[in-house]
Amino acid sequence: MKKLINEPKTVVNELCKGMIEANPNLLAYDEENVVISRKVKKRNKVFLISGGGSGHEPAHAGYVGPGMLDAAVCGDVFASPSVMQVYNAIKENHSDKGVLLIIKNYSGDVMNFENAADLAIEEEEVKVDSVIVNDDVAIEKKEDRRGVAGTLFVHKIAGAAAEDGASLEDCKRVAGKVIRNVRSMGVALKACTVPARGKPTFDLEADKIEMGVGIHGEAGIRRDKWVSVDEMAKVMTDKILKDLPFKSEDECALMINGFGGTPLQELYILNNEVKQILNREKIRVYKTFVGNYMTSIDMAGASISLLNLDSELKKLLSSYSNTVAWKEF
Amino acid sequence: MKKLINEPKTVVNELCKGMIEANPNLLAYDEENVVISRKVKKRNKVFLISGGGSGHEPAHAGYVGPGMLDAAVCGDVFASPSVMQVYNAIKENHSDKGVLLIIKNYSGDVMNFENAADLAIEEEEVKVDSVIVNDDVAIEKKEDRRGVAGTLFVHKIAGAAAEDGASLEDCKRVAGKVIRNVRSMGVALKACTVPARGKPTFDLEADKIEMGVGIHGEAGIRRDKWVSVDEMAKVMTDKILKDLPFKSEDECALMINGFGGTPLQELYILNNEVKQILNREKIRVYKTFVGNYMTSIDMAGASISLLNLDSELKKLLSSYSNTVAWKEF
Repeated sequence: MKKLINEPKTVVNELCKGMIEANPNLLAYDEENVVISRKVKKRNKVFLISGGGSGHEPAHAGYVGPGMLDAAVCGDVFASPSVMQVYNAIKENHSDKGVLLIIKNYSGDVMNFENAADLAIEEEEVKVDSVIVNDDVAIEKKEDRRGVAGTLFVHKIAGAAAEDGASLEDCKRVAGKVIRNVRSMGVALKACTVPARGKPTFDLEADKIEMGVGIHGEAGIRRDKWVSVDEMAKVMTDKILKDLPFKSEDECALMINGFGGTPLQELYILNNEVKQILNREKIRVYKTFVGNYMTSIDMAGASISLLNLDSELKKLLSSYSNTVAWKEF
Repeated sequence: MKKLINEPKTVVNELCKGMIEANPNLLAYDEENVVISRKVKKRNKVFLISGGGSGHEPAHAGYVGPGMLDAAVCGDVFASPSVMQVYNAIKENHSDKGVLLIIKNYSGDVMNFENAADLAIEEEEVKVDSVIVNDDVAIEKKEDRRGVAGTLFVHKIAGAAAEDGASLEDCKRVAGKVIRNVRSMGVALKACTVPARGKPTFDLEADKIEMGVGIHGEAGIRRDKWVSVDEMAKVMTDKILKDLPFKSEDECALMINGFGGTPLQELYILNNEVKQILNREKIRVYKTFVGNYMTSIDMAGASISLLNLDSELKKLLSSYSNTVAWKEF
């Protein structure tokens, strides 16, 4: 393993410091339990808090700022933050309007975020509610589906509602609408290397790909032969389209997300393929996002996320946001 | 070689299409010789044109838009665009105020851009001038130095001046000021794979790094042992600081640039190290940029660029820009 690091155990703390150094809008108020929050904290709005394991940079700290999250709770690499980290985040970031937790559907995250919510409700008398994102169509059973890159549409859209002054109930309603209408699917060409482990999380033959991967270095739902990007795009997009299902004349937001080790040129080529498929299906794309939004350290590969929009979601998706990784103006 | 592509020979055309599909502000007006320009072209401003070989995405097309470039000429992967491509870009993107070409210091680029300028001056009666960027301190001789990530500061700052209505002479003056004051240095942990070649451009042992690499897959100035990021940061930053030289109380812009295959977490860790070094040297950082700005396909590694600022450069650096890869507002 060769990486630009000092030692595996300081990776999360040092990356958070490096992110804060680069962005005057961010601060960490807790050196131990790395939590990053906005400098402007005393505002009468619903506070949005997300987080999870690290290794998904720029998620989630890169989405903290006006129009999106108020705080991100950063666990160790691919490990849920602790109940106390999440509790501290709520304690330091809330208003009378309440707090909405945006949780990706992993048992550790769900348990720790929900326990922290219960504790904060009891100890701090804060209104706290939560939503669970499960956009990954690689998994058949809905309740087992992982939260992946589609989560960022929840941050963006619920964040815009909160910034507009929406109530906790309304932020939760609009977040729920995004969750019901977003679907994602990922493919890996190369596994990632977790710093503390020092070797790839799985071995992949030179001519093979992992179809249906998540974002924690786990293998996909099956090992396929490496094919050209038009065929890969077809397999992935078909799975997404049939799941909701999306239909002709639907208007969508599209995210082509790199897993961290994929060059941008390949993401644009994938976007070109997905766009052609959607054109054939007469599905309109209102807005497209291409880049490293929800990574899996240095995994090579990409995911496709598609969100079906209505006029409310379109408006919120186009609202102002000024975060490290998502600027809209 | 496993990539998200169809075939090597269509990579540049398809990535440009994918980029344009994602960004309604961009258009290609020449399918064969891929040139990307802004949709709103008829304006009385100095037009800024850059480009070069592809493989550096988001450079340069990702910097086309308000406040930065007016057009990007995309050559084949790591190959200069042709004279006719650059000539066509000038022909389609100019005003009476003239055109400034921003060229990275590679013999092919310099020759083709300058020949195209001569042709356009003769055939189109356009005022055309050019600047050559050579920020890479890995090379000792100034005239041989390559243009690397520091080029983006030229795009940004000359772009802001042009947007403000500056004359061609003034745009060239301010671009020249950036070029005199910016220095960069890169390191590679893994070589890149050019699609048409199908294998890494050099082999690197498991415990070795290439210090002083450029952005075209060439080896660096020497092969070092892999060390921790604090030591790498020191070697690179020292070389940069001594070259200008930068001195105590200078105020700078810092870019930590990923080469395409480096996870964002490592770039933030590198930023944390560089910031500590600059703090010790009492060099102030006015603005920091961390991300994949000037890549080398899927190379793992990063470069550090430092630009010494005065009040004019600070103002221009903070001006509005709205491009795919650089949004400032």
